[in-house]
Amino acid sequence: MSNTDSRFMALALSLGRRGQGLCWPNPAVGCVVVQGDRIVGRGWTQPGGRPHAETMALAQAGQRAKGATAYVTLEPCSHHGETPPCSQALIDAGVARVVAAIEDSDPRVSGQGFERLRMSGIQVKTGVLAEQAARDHAGFFLKTEQGRPFVTLKLASSFDGRIATSSGHSQWITGPEARRAVHAMRSRHDAVMVGAGTARADDPSLTVRDLGIAQQPVRVVISRHLDLPLLSQLARTAMDVPLWLCHGPGADIERLKAWEGIGAKLLPCAVRGTQVDAADILQQLGKAGLTRVFCEGGGALAASLLAADLVDELVGYTAGLGIGAEGLPMIGTLGLNRLEQAPRFKLLETRQIGPDIEHRWTRSL
Amino acid sequence: MSNTDSRFMALALSLGRRGQGLCWPNPAVGCVVVQGDRIVGRGWTQPGGRPHAETMALAQAGQRAKGATAYVTLEPCSHHGETPPCSQALIDAGVARVVAAIEDSDPRVSGQGFERLRMSGIQVKTGVLAEQAARDHAGFFLKTEQGRPFVTLKLASSFDGRIATSSGHSQWITGPEARRAVHAMRSRHDAVMVGAGTARADDPSLTVRDLGIAQQPVRVVISRHLDLPLLSQLARTAMDVPLWLCHGPGADIERLKAWEGIGAKLLPCAVRGTQVDAADILQQLGKAGLTRVFCEGGGALAASLLAADLVDELVGYTAGLGIGAEGLPMIGTLGLNRLEQAPRFKLLETRQIGPDIEHRWTRSL
Repeated sequence: MSNTDSRFMALALSLGRRGQGLCWPNPAVGCVVVQGDRIVGRGWTQPGGRPHAETMALAQAGQRAKGATAYVTLEPCSHHGETPPCSQALIDAGVARVVAAIEDSDPRVSGQGFERLRMSGIQVKTGVLAEQAARDHAGFFLKTEQGRPFVTLKLASSFDGRIATSSGHSQWITGPEARRAVHAMRSRHDAVMVGAGTARADDPSLTVRDLGIAQQPVRVVISRHLDLPLLSQLARTAMDVPLWLCHGPGADIERLKAWEGIGAKLLPCAVRGTQVDAADILQQLGKAGLTRVFCEGGGALAASLLAADLVDELVGYTAGLGIGAEGLPMIGTLGLNRLEQAPRFKLLETRQIGPDIEHRWTRSL
Repeated sequence: MSNTDSRFMALALSLGRRGQGLCWPNPAVGCVVVQGDRIVGRGWTQPGGRPHAETMALAQAGQRAKGATAYVTLEPCSHHGETPPCSQALIDAGVARVVAAIEDSDPRVSGQGFERLRMSGIQVKTGVLAEQAARDHAGFFLKTEQGRPFVTLKLASSFDGRIATSSGHSQWITGPEARRAVHAMRSRHDAVMVGAGTARADDPSLTVRDLGIAQQPVRVVISRHLDLPLLSQLARTAMDVPLWLCHGPGADIERLKAWEGIGAKLLPCAVRGTQVDAADILQQLGKAGLTRVFCEGGGALAASLLAADLVDELVGYTAGLGIGAEGLPMIGTLGLNRLEQAPRFKLLETRQIGPDIEHRWTRSL
């Protein structure tokens, strides 16, 4: 039975991940309804955050939900938001048993969703594949608990950790397979974020290409003085794909207006030292609803996130070439003396991807 | 039959590799003698280069070699050196068939070993697992053809390519598993080589530890002015484990004498710019008999080897920590402007090793 539960939960989790990057500010939940040993309903949180996964799966199941087991990757909500609570929908559908992966940390839900189900005579089991669920919902939990989104930092470099030659030449260090994987990763995040230096040097569009996706992630650029070129890919596309600019308090009012005029959203942030404060950037992005942010550098922004211990996952792409010590470093200055002070990560996986290697690391506890 | 040949050759190759690091200046050959489908003899080139693999395997086989098939990882020698040629030994033993992996590029042997066997009515097949054999014997071939040993460059660093903090703190970036793998790799090379900066900064002994090996690889240190501390691990152990010093023409005569006095071997090399010339270092090491050299940095020596296109294999260990741009770079300046000028390598393998990743790359053709 426990094995069966894990199998259906694994399916619910994979369905839930389909919503990642699309359903913020809501969590990307998955749901599977099982009658006997037949799957009668599948659902996941829809783009924009509604309908919820349970609603979708129950609608698909219809009358067959009666007496069924519902697998959900997060505790069903119990509060009336813009829709009636999912715990009530499960009760109304006549579900006999609910298996959940993990409790919701939202204080409006936490434990109360389960309580409501139990009060209606529904059998409740929780903690099935909880570790994977905690990872999948980490962004939603971080936003609820700390006010900031989950941060994935991508670092693509030569094997000596350089992201460009001294003259700024950077296309291409990694191969097409790695670049394609980066596009797929962008699409599973709510936003793609870069520093002003990278925006100026590479003139990127930061969109997801060639993957046939319907909704682009928000583009976030950090620029203390908003001194970004208005003749750029980012500016040109600001009406079509959201562009948010995090700037410092002293930014020029004309520039502010110009960027607002072409469709960008301005997010004023605190400054720390000479840079926009990394912690405040993430608080502002969390307030604006983001749960998962994919940072693609450059070195200064990567360093300020790492120094503030704000990187949750690290994805490296290492290419088989050496650029040498004059090349642009992937991480700026961190001000360390001893190795004990260095930010440490735990390896999740390494694999070959085209001519390069991909390695994923998670925050050490 | 071809499948059987590959299987026995794979065994011969793995036996041959046992001699790597031990039998220079001779190639590390493996040999398996098979009577019917029974293995009746196994051999590999012994420490110091003699007896040869064929001699060992035939001695083990004895009378059972008559009519047998001998698998050898390199064309059997045909010239009289310090021992009679192996091709004659195979003839004398009455072997019916010889399967070889690859032809010897030594002009005293090349093709003549096979010719001698065929003249005696022995059936000869060659090219079985030739690619692996070419890799295993690459050092011997390079020495024969270009006068230099095979060079493996090891780079162990933080994920941003740093080998120490700005204050020089470097113990430990990688975990014990990676460090142990490095000791095993040292033992499969004829020599371990570092630059003077690394010798001064880390005071290493560069020996193979905790692996129960009988013969230590030669330690090679590159120091233009021979300004290395005489109170050091290297100096202290120079009587027990070979220590070779590659220096420039202007090195102080007192220092030369001091190092010679404590047992070091001095190798005068040409200078190129401000550094000892990487190409000449390798020529001198080749003349002294080395076929496989394991370079462990530092950044300046790594850069001069890479810039001169003298790195054949690259082994990286990447740890899950960031040190930042002030840290010591793993590769010194290369003077590149465009990525097209960067030395490129082809990925062989990547895997997890303890908390770190290991990645191996080979020279791109």
